[in-house]
Amino acid sequence: MTSYSAPVRDFQFLLQNVFNAQETLYTLPGFEEVDQDMAKMVLEEGAKVCEEVLHPINGSGDQQGCLFDDGMVTTPDGFIEAYQTFTEAGWSSLSLPREYGGQGLPETLNFAMEEMTWSANAAFILCSVLTRGVVNLLQAYASDELKEQYLENLVSGTWTGTMCLTESHSGTDLGLVRTRAVPQDDGSFALSGTKIFITGGDHDLTENIIHLVLARLPDAPQGVRGISLFLVPRNLPDAQGNWQQDNGVNCGSIEHKMGIKGSSTCVMNFDGATGYLVGELNQGLPQMFKLMNLARLSIGLQGLGIAEVAYQNAVTYARERLQTRSLSGIKNPDGPADPIIVHADVRRMLLTTRAYVEGCRAMSIWTGMQLDTAHVHPDADVRQEANDLIELITPVFKAFCTDMGYETATLCQQIFGGHGYIQETGMEQFVRDVRIAQIYEGTNGVQALDLVRRKLFIYEGRLPETLFKRIDQFIMQQGADDKREFVAPVAEALQRLRELTQWLLEVSKQNPDELGAASVDYLRVFALTTLAWFWAQMACVAKSGEENSFNTAKLSTARFFFGRLLPQIDGLDRGIRSGAQHLMELDESFF
Amino acid sequence: MTSYSAPVRDFQFLLQNVFNAQETLYTLPGFEEVDQDMAKMVLEEGAKVCEEVLHPINGSGDQQGCLFDDGMVTTPDGFIEAYQTFTEAGWSSLSLPREYGGQGLPETLNFAMEEMTWSANAAFILCSVLTRGVVNLLQAYASDELKEQYLENLVSGTWTGTMCLTESHSGTDLGLVRTRAVPQDDGSFALSGTKIFITGGDHDLTENIIHLVLARLPDAPQGVRGISLFLVPRNLPDAQGNWQQDNGVNCGSIEHKMGIKGSSTCVMNFDGATGYLVGELNQGLPQMFKLMNLARLSIGLQGLGIAEVAYQNAVTYARERLQTRSLSGIKNPDGPADPIIVHADVRRMLLTTRAYVEGCRAMSIWTGMQLDTAHVHPDADVRQEANDLIELITPVFKAFCTDMGYETATLCQQIFGGHGYIQETGMEQFVRDVRIAQIYEGTNGVQALDLVRRKLFIYEGRLPETLFKRIDQFIMQQGADDKREFVAPVAEALQRLRELTQWLLEVSKQNPDELGAASVDYLRVFALTTLAWFWAQMACVAKSGEENSFNTAKLSTARFFFGRLLPQIDGLDRGIRSGAQHLMELDESFF
Repeated sequence: MTSYSAPVRDFQFLLQNVFNAQETLYTLPGFEEVDQDMAKMVLEEGAKVCEEVLHPINGSGDQQGCLFDDGMVTTPDGFIEAYQTFTEAGWSSLSLPREYGGQGLPETLNFAMEEMTWSANAAFILCSVLTRGVVNLLQAYASDELKEQYLENLVSGTWTGTMCLTESHSGTDLGLVRTRAVPQDDGSFALSGTKIFITGGDHDLTENIIHLVLARLPDAPQGVRGISLFLVPRNLPDAQGNWQQDNGVNCGSIEHKMGIKGSSTCVMNFDGATGYLVGELNQGLPQMFKLMNLARLSIGLQGLGIAEVAYQNAVTYARERLQTRSLSGIKNPDGPADPIIVHADVRRMLLTTRAYVEGCRAMSIWTGMQLDTAHVHPDADVRQEANDLIELITPVFKAFCTDMGYETATLCQQIFGGHGYIQETGMEQFVRDVRIAQIYEGTNGVQALDLVRRKLFIYEGRLPETLFKRIDQFIMQQGADDKREFVAPVAEALQRLRELTQWLLEVSKQNPDELGAASVDYLRVFALTTLAWFWAQMACVAKSGEENSFNTAKLSTARFFFGRLLPQIDGLDRGIRSGAQHLMELDESFF
Repeated sequence: MTSYSAPVRDFQFLLQNVFNAQETLYTLPGFEEVDQDMAKMVLEEGAKVCEEVLHPINGSGDQQGCLFDDGMVTTPDGFIEAYQTFTEAGWSSLSLPREYGGQGLPETLNFAMEEMTWSANAAFILCSVLTRGVVNLLQAYASDELKEQYLENLVSGTWTGTMCLTESHSGTDLGLVRTRAVPQDDGSFALSGTKIFITGGDHDLTENIIHLVLARLPDAPQGVRGISLFLVPRNLPDAQGNWQQDNGVNCGSIEHKMGIKGSSTCVMNFDGATGYLVGELNQGLPQMFKLMNLARLSIGLQGLGIAEVAYQNAVTYARERLQTRSLSGIKNPDGPADPIIVHADVRRMLLTTRAYVEGCRAMSIWTGMQLDTAHVHPDADVRQEANDLIELITPVFKAFCTDMGYETATLCQQIFGGHGYIQETGMEQFVRDVRIAQIYEGTNGVQALDLVRRKLFIYEGRLPETLFKRIDQFIMQQGADDKREFVAPVAEALQRLRELTQWLLEVSKQNPDELGAASVDYLRVFALTTLAWFWAQMACVAKSGEENSFNTAKLSTARFFFGRLLPQIDGLDRGIRSGAQHLMELDESFF
C-alpha cells in the first residue's frame, strides 16, 4: 500500500525563508507565544499523527467504506480510535478560539496541518474540516446562548458539525431550497425537509451531530432572499441535561460514491426537528457563504494534499521499478533494466506534479498568512488589504489546487503503469478521492464564475489590482541579473494577464456570456500567473541560500515550471479570445 | 442509469460525404457486395445490439464485477446471454475472414461497430476485441495445422483468445519475460511461468480459451531477441476429440481494479502446459507487435466510444437540469431556473467533448479505410502508402483518443455536479472504465516514444512526410474563400508541426533524451494538427451541403475546435522547446 512522509522541511522553508513568518506572522497580536521552534514542533508532531495514525487506515477505509444499516452509519475499522487520538490531542482545534477550548494558533499553521491530514486520509478528515467551519460560522453569527451551549463541544470534537445545503433539485442554485422552518411558540423553529449529499450527516464517531440547515419560513420571500440558517442538533438535551433526546433528524440512506468512501454522504430527513435561528432571518445564504469561503480553501488543500502523497508514492515507485534502458545510455549496468526515473517522460510527470504541488503550497501558506493578518492585524487598512486578497484568491485556490490535484494524481497513477489501475497499490484511490474536490463546495465552474463575475469587478476592480501591485513590487525589488530568469517570465505573464483582464472587461460589457465563456480558462491563466510569482519568490530565496540538495531541487523545479508549465497560458489566452459566440451559437436542440 | 444511442448518422456522413466510401472503399477487391445501403443496414443493426443488449448490462456489470472462486471466474449477470446473442449474430466476426466463417466486411465498418460496442459496454467487449487480435495474428503467422484446428472456433466466438505478455517484473519492458518453454519430443513445448494482467484469462463465456503466450526457450538469447510466441489452449482435445482435457493452465486470482470490473483481469499460471510455436523461434516480439498495433487502434476506439456515451448522457442532463439563470437573461421563464445547457461554461465542456469525439471519429474511419486499402488494394504502391499512414497514426490515435476520452469523460461527469460522483448516475463509471485505456496496450508515454523515436525517423522520415503531403494537397484543393476560416488554421498548424519536427530532429542528434522530453506533448501537437485537418475536411463538406441541423452543428463545432481547442498547440510548442535539460538535471535522489 501507500506511504506518506509529511513535507515539514518545505513548510519551514516557506514560513521562515520565503514569507518571513518570524517577523510578519508570529508578531501579530495573540501569536506572541509562537516562534520558529514552536512552529516546527507543532508541524513535526502533526506530521507524526498523520503518518502514523491517519494514513495507515486510508486504504482500508476505502476498501471497507461506510456501512448503513437500520438508520445508522458505521465508519470503517479504526476510524473511531483515530478520531479520539486526533481530537484529544487537539489537532482538530489547532486554530480555533482559546475561549472555547481551542489552541488559538495561527491559521497558517493549521493550513499546513490540514494539507498533511488531506494527504494522510481525505475521507477521515472531512468531518473535522466541516466542524471547524461550523464553529467559525456560529462564532460569527450565533447568539451568545447558542455559542455557550454548542461551541465548546464542537471545538473539542466531542460533537461534529455538518452543512445541510443541497436538496435533490437544488445544488449550485440554493435559491431553490424547499426545506421549511415553522416558528414555534418558544422561539425555536420546526424544520421539515430532505437534504442530500450531507457529509458526516450520520456516523459513529461522536454521540451528537450539530447540523446547520438552510430552510425557508412559510412566509419567506422567494429565491435566495428567503433563506435562513438554523442550528439543528441530532439530539436535544433531556430533562436531566443529557443530550439523548431524539430530535426527528434521521439519515435515510448513504450514497455509493466514486471515492472518499470512508466518509458518509447522507440523505438527511428532518421531520419537524427543533432548530434555532443562526444570525438574521433571510440572511442564511450570505452567512453560509462566509463559511463556504473558508471551506473552499480547505477543499483546495484537499487537492494539494492528495497531489503531494501521490507524488511521494510515484517517486518511490519510479526509483524502484526497473524497466527498459535510458535513451542516453545504460544507467544501471548491474540491473536487468534502468529504474524508470531515468526516463525523461517519467520525470516530466513527476516534475509537473512537484512544480504544481510546491507552487500551490506556497499559495496556501501565503493565503493562511493573509487570513491571520485579516483576523488580528492592528491596522485596519492592512486587514482590509488582506481581506481583499483572500476574497480574490479563494476561488482561484479552490479550483486550481483541485484541478491540478486530479491531473497530477492521474499522472502519478500513470507512472505505475498497469499496477496503478489495481486497487492494491492505492494510486487509483488518490484519483477517486481527489475527484470530488473539483465538484463540492461549489464546482470549479462556479469558482471560475465567482472570479470573473464578482471578484474582478467589485469595488471597481480593487481586488485584482491589489494582487497585481504586489507582484509589480516583487518584480521591481528583484533587480539582480542572476535572478532574471525567474523574474522576467513573471513580468511577461502579469502583463498578459492584465491585458486579458482588460479585454474581458470590455467584451463582457457587450455580452455577459463572455464572462462564462472565458471563466474556467481565465481562472487557469490567473492561477498560473500567480503561481509564477510564488515560484519566482521561492527561486530567488533558494538562489540566495546555501547550495544544498533542497535549494538545488527548488531551483530545478522552478526552471521546469517556467520552461514547461507556464507557457500553457499562450494557448489559453488565444483560446479565450476566440470569444463566446462559438459557445453560444449552437441551438440547444442540435447538441 | 445511462442511455446510449449510436451515432449512425455521423458514421454515414463520414463514409458517404467526407471520405466517399462508395468509390474508394466499396470498390476494393472483396467488398463488391458492399454499398451505402448495406453499410447503413449493418450499422443500424449493430446499433440495436449495442443499445438494447450490451448497454443495459453496463452498469450492473460494473456493480457486480467478476467473481473468482475456487479457480473459476464468473462474469456478471447477463454477460453469458449477451455474449451468445452477440457472437451468434456474427458481430464479433464482422471483418474476420470468410475462409474461417467470418463476415469478410471492411475493417472500416468494424471500426464503426467497435466504437459503438465500447460506448455500450467496455468491460463486455474486451474479450471479443482481443480474440479478433488473436485471429489476425494466427492468420498471419501460425502453421496451416494450427489455423485449421483453432481459427474457426475463434472466429465464431465459440472460443475466446488472450494475449499473455506481462509478468510482474516485466510490463513495458518485455525483454525481461521469464516464462519458459521447453521443447518436447512431439514438436510441442511445455510452458511454465506466471503471467499477470491477463484480460479474459478465465471466464464462463466459452468452454475453451486460447492463450497466446510470450516465453523463452532454455537456450534462447537474452532480452527481446530470445522471446518466442506460443499458442496454449486452456483445454486440449481428449481421445474422443472433445476439448476437455486439462492443460495445466490455471487462473490464480483476479485483480480488483479501478474500472472495467465486468472484465476479468487474471493472474495465469502455466504449469508445464502444452503449447505450440506460432511463427518463427525468437520472433515472438515482432510478431506480437503486429497484433499489438491493431489492438492499439482498438484501445483508441475505447477512448472514443466512452467519450461519446459520456457526451450523450451529459447533454441529456444539461437539457433537463434546472439550476440558476443565464448570464444573458432568463431563458426558461416558466421554470424555477434555466436548464444548465444555457450556461457558456457548460457548453464549453459539452463542445470540447463533441469536437474531440467527432474529430477522433473522422480519424478512426479514415484509419479503418487505410487498413482496408493496405489489405486489399490492387496497387502495391497504394498499399504501401496506406501501410505507412497506419504505422504513423497508430500511436497518435491510441494515445490521443484515450487521453481525450479520460479528459472528456471527466468533463461530462463534471456537468452532473455532485450527482456525477454518485455511482447511480453511471458517469463516474465512464471515467473509471476509460482510465485503463491510457495505460494498457502500451502506456500513452510508450506510444509517444514510439512516435518520436521510431515513426518520425524510419525510412528517412517517409512516414510523416506522407501524411503532411496529404494535408498539403487538401489545403491546395480548398481554394474557396468561404472555406478559408477552416483551411487557414490547418496550414498554420501544419507549418508549426513541420518546424517543431525539424527542431526535434536537430536537438535529438545532440541529446537523445530530447526525444523522451518532447514525446508526450509533441504527440499532442501532432494529434491536434491532424484533427484540424479532419475538422477542416468535415467543415468544408458541411459548408457545401444543404442547410440542416446536422450540417449547422458540424460547422459550429468546427469553429469551436479551431477557436478554442487548436490554440493549445501554442503553449505546447513553446513548452516543448524548453528542452530536456529542465527534466534531466535534477539528481534522482533529490526528487
